[in-house]
Amino acid sequence: MNQQSEANKSLKVGLIQQKHLGSRARNLDYTAEQINHLALQGCNLVVLQELHGSAYFCQTENTDHFDQAEAIKGSTFNFLSTLAIQHNMVIVGSIFEKRASGLYHNTAIVIERDGSLAGYYRKMHIPDDPGYYEKFYFTPGDYQENTQGYIPVNTSIGKLGVMVCWDQWFPEAARLMTLAGADILIYPTAIGWNTDDSASEQKMQLDAWLTIQRSHAIANGIPLISCNRTGIEPDPSGQSQGIHFWGNSFISGPQGEILLQADANQTATINTTINLSQSEKVRQNWPFLRDRRIDSYQQLLQRFMK
Amino acid sequence: MNQQSEANKSLKVGLIQQKHLGSRARNLDYTAEQINHLALQGCNLVVLQELHGSAYFCQTENTDHFDQAEAIKGSTFNFLSTLAIQHNMVIVGSIFEKRASGLYHNTAIVIERDGSLAGYYRKMHIPDDPGYYEKFYFTPGDYQENTQGYIPVNTSIGKLGVMVCWDQWFPEAARLMTLAGADILIYPTAIGWNTDDSASEQKMQLDAWLTIQRSHAIANGIPLISCNRTGIEPDPSGQSQGIHFWGNSFISGPQGEILLQADANQTATINTTINLSQSEKVRQNWPFLRDRRIDSYQQLLQRFMK
Repeated sequence: MNQQSEANKSLKVGLIQQKHLGSRARNLDYTAEQINHLALQGCNLVVLQELHGSAYFCQTENTDHFDQAEAIKGSTFNFLSTLAIQHNMVIVGSIFEKRASGLYHNTAIVIERDGSLAGYYRKMHIPDDPGYYEKFYFTPGDYQENTQGYIPVNTSIGKLGVMVCWDQWFPEAARLMTLAGADILIYPTAIGWNTDDSASEQKMQLDAWLTIQRSHAIANGIPLISCNRTGIEPDPSGQSQGIHFWGNSFISGPQGEILLQADANQTATINTTINLSQSEKVRQNWPFLRDRRIDSYQQLLQRFMK
Repeated sequence: MNQQSEANKSLKVGLIQQKHLGSRARNLDYTAEQINHLALQGCNLVVLQELHGSAYFCQTENTDHFDQAEAIKGSTFNFLSTLAIQHNMVIVGSIFEKRASGLYHNTAIVIERDGSLAGYYRKMHIPDDPGYYEKFYFTPGDYQENTQGYIPVNTSIGKLGVMVCWDQWFPEAARLMTLAGADILIYPTAIGWNTDDSASEQKMQLDAWLTIQRSHAIANGIPLISCNRTGIEPDPSGQSQGIHFWGNSFISGPQGEILLQADANQTATINTTINLSQSEKVRQNWPFLRDRRIDSYQQLLQRFMK
C-alpha cells in the first residue's frame, strides 16, 4: 500500500447515545436531528446504539414484540439510507431483523454513503439474564468460514468490524474480526444497571464493561467505538425497577486509550478524529499478532476441558 | 463438590515486587526475608517476579548468560523448597531453565507446602523487542493436548493457572488456562518503560498492561495475581538508558476489580485475601462461559485470514 495515503487515513467518527422517547417516530426524529449535527461537524461515520428505533423490549418475553421486526432492507434501512445520501456518510444502525416466519436476529446494518447496503452483521453471542431475555427473541448469527460470522463490512472509509453488545465480552470475537482484516471494531450496545445493585457493584460493572472493550483494542492494536443507550426504561412486568442504561459510550485508540467518553445519564452526540493508520505503528511496537501460538490454541474450540 | 467447603475457599495471597540488588545472593536473601514477612501475615501462597534471582539479562544478546541457566529442580528450586517447608506455603518462582545443552526456557516453578515440585510452566509466548531479546534465550514452551502448555498446576490450595509475562497480552492463553480448570491466573513478569518515551506514552503503556490483565479476570470470571519487577536496570550495551521496570504489581478479583496494587518505584511486599469460590457467583451472573460460540472459533487457529 502507498505509505503517503496510509499515513493520512484519518476518519472523523461520531456516535449518538440516546434515550427511548416513547415511540419509533420520536426516536428516529431525534436520530435524524443528531445525524445532521454530526454531518455539520464533518463526520464520515456515525454509529447508533443497539435497537435505537424502539424501547429495549427484551425485559420481558412477549410475542407481541415480534410484530416490530423488519427486513434488513426494511423501514430502518430506508430511513438511514436517505440520511447517508443526504450527508454523504457511512451509518451503522441496529435492527430487530425478521429473516423468515419465526426466525429473527439482532442485526447491525451498515449503509454506504450512496445509500446502498454495504453489509450487515447478525449478533453471534446472545445473552439471557433477568431483564435481558434475548434468547427468546434472537437466533444467534450463522457461521460459515469466510462468508458468515465475524466478517468486516467493506466500505468506502475502511473495513468495519461491526458486532453487537454481548459480543463485546468475548475476546474471541474481537480477535476474529481483527484477523479478518477489520480496521476498527464497532459495538452498538444496550447495557445498564439493575437499580437494586449497590453503588459499588454498579461502579464495578461499568468499569468491567469499559475494561473488556478497551482490552480488545489493546490485544489487537485497533481502534474501537462503543455506542450505548442511556435513560431508565421501566420493566413492563413490574417485577423489577427496570434498566438504568449506563451510557458511557466511548471511542478508543489502538492502545485502549479512551479518546472520548459520554457520561452515564445524558443523551450525548460526540465525535472525534481517529487515524486508522496508527494501528500499523502500534502493532510494530507491540507485535502480538506476530507471536500468537496458533499451534497451541486448538482447545479454544472446546466448551471446557473436562 | 461440597457447597459448604466451596463457600469458604479463601486464600491469603502475597507477592514480592523487588529490585535487582546486584547479585543472586542478595536477591535471594531479600526474597527469603520478604517470604518470612508474608508467612507472618499468614499467607498460603506467595508469587515472585520473573527471573527474580538475577538481573533481567535479556537487554542484550550475550551467550555468557546461558551459564546462569539451571534445571527445574536446580538451585532456585532447592532454595524455595526449603522456604516452602519452613513456612508451610505454596511458592511460585521463576527461573532461566536449562532443559538440555543448547535448549533453554523461561519457566515458572510451583513449590508445594511440603517442598515438593507441584509443577512448572514454560513460557509459551516469547517477546522480542529492543531491550527484551528473549527469542535469543528462550525456546517457547511445548504444546501437547492436556499434557503440555496451558495446564494449571494442581496444589493443595487450588489449581494455579501460572503463565509468564508476555503471555499476559494474549486473551487466548488466559482463556485456555480457565477452560483447563484454573482457579486463579498468575503472572510473574518483567516489564518497564523505555525512559526515552514521553510521560503520556508511559502512562498509556502501563494502563494498557493493567487493562489487558484485568480483562482476563473479567472474560473468565477468575481472580488474578501479577508480580512485576521494579527499579532501573542499565543496558550493558550502553545503547539505551536501560529499562525502568514499572512495578504496579497487583491482585484482582474475578470482575477485574483491583484489590491491591503496588506503586511503580518502590519494592513492595503486599498481601490480601481472595475468595476462590466468588468465581462461581460471578460466572452465574455473567455467564460468558455458557455463551461461547465454539462452533464459530475455528479461525482462531489461523495467523490471519489472507
